[in-house]
Amino acid sequence: MSAAQSSDQPSQNIYLPKTSESEQLKKIRHTTSHVMAMAVQKLFPGTQVTIGPWIESGFYYDFDSPTPFTEQDLKAIKKEMVKIIKRKLPVIREEVSRAEAQQRIEALQEPYKLEILADLKEPITLYHLGDEWWDLCAGPHVESTAELNPKAIELESVAGAYWRGDETKAQLQRIYGTAWETPEQLAEHKRRKEEALRRDHRKLGKELGLFIFSDLVGPGLPLWTPKGTVLRSQLEDFLKQEQIKRGYLGVTTPHIARVDLFKTSGHWQKYQEDMFPLMSENDADRNSEQGFVMKPMNCPFHIQIYKSELRSYRDLPMRLAEFGTVYRYEQSGELGGLTRVRGFTVDDSHLFVTPDQLDDEFLKVVDLILSVFDKLQLQNFKARLSFRDPASDKYIGSDTAWEKAENAIRRAVEALGMEHFEGIGEAAFYGPKLDFIFQDVLDREWQLGTVQVDYNLPERFDLEFMGEDGNRQRPIMIHRAPFGSLERLIGILIEQYAGVFPLWLAPEQLRLLTVGDDHMPFAHKVAADLQAAGVRVMVDQSGDRLGKKIRNAEKAKIPVMSVIGDQEVEANSLNIRTRAAGELGVISVTEVVERVKGAIANYGDF
Amino acid sequence: MSAAQSSDQPSQNIYLPKTSESEQLKKIRHTTSHVMAMAVQKLFPGTQVTIGPWIESGFYYDFDSPTPFTEQDLKAIKKEMVKIIKRKLPVIREEVSRAEAQQRIEALQEPYKLEILADLKEPITLYHLGDEWWDLCAGPHVESTAELNPKAIELESVAGAYWRGDETKAQLQRIYGTAWETPEQLAEHKRRKEEALRRDHRKLGKELGLFIFSDLVGPGLPLWTPKGTVLRSQLEDFLKQEQIKRGYLGVTTPHIARVDLFKTSGHWQKYQEDMFPLMSENDADRNSEQGFVMKPMNCPFHIQIYKSELRSYRDLPMRLAEFGTVYRYEQSGELGGLTRVRGFTVDDSHLFVTPDQLDDEFLKVVDLILSVFDKLQLQNFKARLSFRDPASDKYIGSDTAWEKAENAIRRAVEALGMEHFEGIGEAAFYGPKLDFIFQDVLDREWQLGTVQVDYNLPERFDLEFMGEDGNRQRPIMIHRAPFGSLERLIGILIEQYAGVFPLWLAPEQLRLLTVGDDHMPFAHKVAADLQAAGVRVMVDQSGDRLGKKIRNAEKAKIPVMSVIGDQEVEANSLNIRTRAAGELGVISVTEVVERVKGAIANYGDF
Repeated sequence: MSAAQSSDQPSQNIYLPKTSESEQLKKIRHTTSHVMAMAVQKLFPGTQVTIGPWIESGFYYDFDSPTPFTEQDLKAIKKEMVKIIKRKLPVIREEVSRAEAQQRIEALQEPYKLEILADLKEPITLYHLGDEWWDLCAGPHVESTAELNPKAIELESVAGAYWRGDETKAQLQRIYGTAWETPEQLAEHKRRKEEALRRDHRKLGKELGLFIFSDLVGPGLPLWTPKGTVLRSQLEDFLKQEQIKRGYLGVTTPHIARVDLFKTSGHWQKYQEDMFPLMSENDADRNSEQGFVMKPMNCPFHIQIYKSELRSYRDLPMRLAEFGTVYRYEQSGELGGLTRVRGFTVDDSHLFVTPDQLDDEFLKVVDLILSVFDKLQLQNFKARLSFRDPASDKYIGSDTAWEKAENAIRRAVEALGMEHFEGIGEAAFYGPKLDFIFQDVLDREWQLGTVQVDYNLPERFDLEFMGEDGNRQRPIMIHRAPFGSLERLIGILIEQYAGVFPLWLAPEQLRLLTVGDDHMPFAHKVAADLQAAGVRVMVDQSGDRLGKKIRNAEKAKIPVMSVIGDQEVEANSLNIRTRAAGELGVISVTEVVERVKGAIANYGDF
Repeated sequence: MSAAQSSDQPSQNIYLPKTSESEQLKKIRHTTSHVMAMAVQKLFPGTQVTIGPWIESGFYYDFDSPTPFTEQDLKAIKKEMVKIIKRKLPVIREEVSRAEAQQRIEALQEPYKLEILADLKEPITLYHLGDEWWDLCAGPHVESTAELNPKAIELESVAGAYWRGDETKAQLQRIYGTAWETPEQLAEHKRRKEEALRRDHRKLGKELGLFIFSDLVGPGLPLWTPKGTVLRSQLEDFLKQEQIKRGYLGVTTPHIARVDLFKTSGHWQKYQEDMFPLMSENDADRNSEQGFVMKPMNCPFHIQIYKSELRSYRDLPMRLAEFGTVYRYEQSGELGGLTRVRGFTVDDSHLFVTPDQLDDEFLKVVDLILSVFDKLQLQNFKARLSFRDPASDKYIGSDTAWEKAENAIRRAVEALGMEHFEGIGEAAFYGPKLDFIFQDVLDREWQLGTVQVDYNLPERFDLEFMGEDGNRQRPIMIHRAPFGSLERLIGILIEQYAGVFPLWLAPEQLRLLTVGDDHMPFAHKVAADLQAAGVRVMVDQSGDRLGKKIRNAEKAKIPVMSVIGDQEVEANSLNIRTRAAGELGVISVTEVVERVKGAIANYGDF
């Protein structure tokens, strides 16, 4: 393995548990956040404390402070924390009455704590650091600051935050920090953070020229450049081929519909706040809900196609598929890069099946999803059974319909012997889902593919098929999307591959670098041969010196590059160097063409 | 040539001039419409006359009549017309003063004629039929009804119409008729009308299962079925391949943008009435023009991609291409089938070129368009130079910019020696166009491809490139779309081909029909071989008798069908019958696969 590749694959030898997975980390982080608050109040008298919980990779504490903390302040705070820790202060739990707690808080003049106290149930517990500082806290904590390792603690950043997350309330200063059991863990944590930054798809997307955003077009609406469009097409074509093999039928539907369509589906009642506003000429139109609205999902459209003819049991399963671009009105504060956008393309399909076909078709869908993940080298994922929260009114349909659908999903994961966990309240409004949660090289989790079982929309749209017995029956729908969103998938792939796409996906697969201008004609001849074979090849025509050409090809993360000099021209050969395997030496042009074609067809390396 | 094909290609031996092309037809149709009006007033006393102009294929006359005319009435009217014609009434022109005309109309109690009179300039001319009936009319007319041939006249239909086309005014009865010099012309006209009905893409689209409309989705928004989606993909893939060869780069952009984008482009000022309304939460948002709006064109988006980096002269020409679906708010009364829709996909491209490159790139675009038409077997078209109307305020930009752009188009058609005509007022709001007007097998005209030269949007968006001299310069844009709209193109192709698609386009290319169930395994084996070769093949599994299977395949207009019986299974061969060439006899499976593949690759027949 070459140096180039190993740097794209971080070692995962050190396991970093999340706070929720480690009782010890919970204690360490709780206590460290108290130590930090004590240090802040010591260095910045008059600063008021609010809350300081752990988060999965560390902790934070929100302060009401008249001036923002600087980088310099963080250093001073950290220094003060080390002093406190070195004093080996005992951490002492105390249980008090509400009245007692209130009296003590009033004495400290900490109004936020009073508000917090009002929400607490008895017994009220306090945690003391020695006899100098205490906080309302449910724990757990370490027994003494001696258990904290100053070399495993770091203050990371400062951000603004609103008291209780409410924009109308006071603005606070949030200090983020992290704390570990060992300095090695902290080092690994820092390495991963840097790695995440290096892999950030927003940064790489810009560097590699894959997509842009435009203020005039608006937030959350990526525009795909030629290179990014190649990526999209490769992914779409790949899945289309898989789908053709499996009997899917392509359809094409509009991006808008009359609001009535979404009233029939229930989107207007249960999903409206995620939808773009009505297109209306005036308030009267808007209030009478005339007019058109952008689609947040493709299902009601595929249903219209299903329903355009009376279907027979012989027509089922009918698998309608579309790369359908949908629009959802995400709050602009939530938009960032490709992982949360306002317009995205779902690799959507809706399968209309008879009750007898449900289990088998569901398993076939899972099989397709797993084979897609395999080709994309996404190995690390788990299955979530996303069920409804029976107490919520977010859902449509009868209890029976929900039970049948949830049972179908349970049967499937059991038949597959698939590890899974339940996510209550994670269902779609019309039915439960089996979601695939992908864990990336940095242990971050992303929702990718989904399969859903739906007895409700067939009911609402009064869908039918003519059964073998001559009676009209109700089909069941399976909604499914292996990628989920093409945009988010590409965001995740950029980070997972650190921008180094496998050959079949790479926007530019091969770059030819000539030593001198004399070698240009040969380079263009080879390029034409490769192009004719369907390879995305470029000749560097910059006129730069060879060293710079090579550096540029490396920076652009081209999977295969070839330097062309006298020797290569004479031998009708190419000197090949790949990111995956380094220098491969001189190979005849014919063999290069064959090997590139083969590698692309097999989703493999050159 | 087989019977099947010849019925799809109507003979065009008889030339049918349009009214505007024939002085004699103008006279005949003017006079016939007067004869009709006279007959109506004789048979239906109290009916008031309004206007009765010629149209390109006949004439109509609008009447204010208390009860609608029936088919039966039309027959009676025609009979009465024949009587009038046979009386050989002279058609006499008379010039009168306005006062005289008014007096005479008042005597007849014809209030509509009074209104018409008010708009006429002197001299006022009347035309008399003998001494029994007259009408305000500018002529021309034949000299006597003896010149009309009753066997070359037909009353065709009745429809409602509003006085002066205004929905708030009186509703009238419009009788459409046609009149020719000879009965042979009338017969050919009727044949063409029937042929047009037989080829009607709305009817064929339904019969062949290509697309549907849904009331819930809304008018003008087609949903494409699996078969229609195959058609779309084939056309898209075909053009994409052509574009890759010619250095085009694919991009992908959203279907919506902030209204500010369209203010910068000028769409909001000059094109708003063709756009869907703003997506706004309330009137306040709408009035402040906050919010998003659907794109009626792709150009401003491609401009954003161009503008996302500083481009060098070395990057130009940059040809950005997208099958971009746009939405335009056509009035619902104007919607019909695929030829006028509210959402359609433009095979759009925007070329950013230096002034030096303009002429050459323009010619290359024309070359691409002509080669596309050739592959689609669209042979009969003319070029329209669509220029602005200098008197109108519908356009943006300076006179100089318009002159430069219009001159570039003139230079191109002259360089190509291309026959052309000018269409004043047919320009896009930002620049002039070269439009290709296709004339179909029934002599109807359709606008297809377009090329536009644009100096204005580069100015409005302040586009630049770094020139060879190190100075920033302004690029010129070429907008172009060979298909124009994918939807309209498919509508036209359905009619042009009468639903019989060439092999490469046909949603189902080959159908296998087994004589008995015993032959099924062989049929499926052959189907698998053909599928592996990329052929869209189906096995008829209906269980119908062979005769019915054959009729169904004919009705579905499958280009190639093959009956499989004992002989074929034994010989590992297929008995091939094509729509293009009839019975081809028995051919080995291997040869069939090769020939189908070859025909598809060459856009030819089996």
